[in-house]
Amino acid sequence: MQQRLSLITLGVSDLARARAFYERLGWRSNTPAEFDVIFFQLGGMVLSLWDRESLAKDSGVTLGSGFGGVTLAYNVRSPAEVDETIAEAESAGARVTRPPSATFWGGYSGVFLDPDAHPWEVAHNPLWDVAADGSVTLPG
Amino acid sequence: MQQRLSLITLGVSDLARARAFYERLGWRSNTPAEFDVIFFQLGGMVLSLWDRESLAKDSGVTLGSGFGGVTLAYNVRSPAEVDETIAEAESAGARVTRPPSATFWGGYSGVFLDPDAHPWEVAHNPLWDVAADGSVTLPG
Repeated sequence: MQQRLSLITLGVSDLARARAFYERLGWRSNTPAEFDVIFFQLGGMVLSLWDRESLAKDSGVTLGSGFGGVTLAYNVRSPAEVDETIAEAESAGARVTRPPSATFWGGYSGVFLDPDAHPWEVAHNPLWDVAADGSVTLPG
Repeated sequence: MQQRLSLITLGVSDLARARAFYERLGWRSNTPAEFDVIFFQLGGMVLSLWDRESLAKDSGVTLGSGFGGVTLAYNVRSPAEVDETIAEAESAGARVTRPPSATFWGGYSGVFLDPDAHPWEVAHNPLWDVAADGSVTLPG
């Protein structure tokens, strides 16, 4: 199994609400509005939104309650950009569960929840470069 | 907010067990074994493994029970490669929750759970090309 990821699917309870949230953040999808799934192209991978119950059933698991232990992160190029992005997400309807501040690992970050409570950390890590195309590469 | 993802973190209950599982799949990390987090470079993004409770606390959320509604997918180039990859994961200790079969969306896939019950769908989607570098691009 190669070291790569093709797709991440976030289970949602209201597809139109979830799509509208990501569109307010500036994201765009070519998926027709009448489809029951939405695909966003993210660099060389895809992020999709799909009904939470259907996702559990399709994965052969029982849907739990609340946070299942997966967090997404969006790295930016400065602490100021963390502040701006968290403010933008809050304006788009996100709930901020950790306001931007210095972190124990020497960076600066905050966390917001999307409308289905999936956490996004917005982080500036001074050791991780964010390339012009948005890709990040581990040091060393 | 640009349409991109820097990092996905999977919460785990036993870091050494989780690392060993992904290493049995052929993945490699430069993170020293004594660290309490592990980073894998995945194309232009990173996948990390971190303590599940710490991840919840750091995200400002309460840890739920079971599946929280996030599934990862690994796309391959043929149905036979789905079978091979699911068999490889099972040999590495994964639990297969959906054996490979034709899907309702016209592809062929199966699902396995990693040691912390994070689902991975292994899929052949005839409409999605997997490039030589592993990247996938939506049609249209």
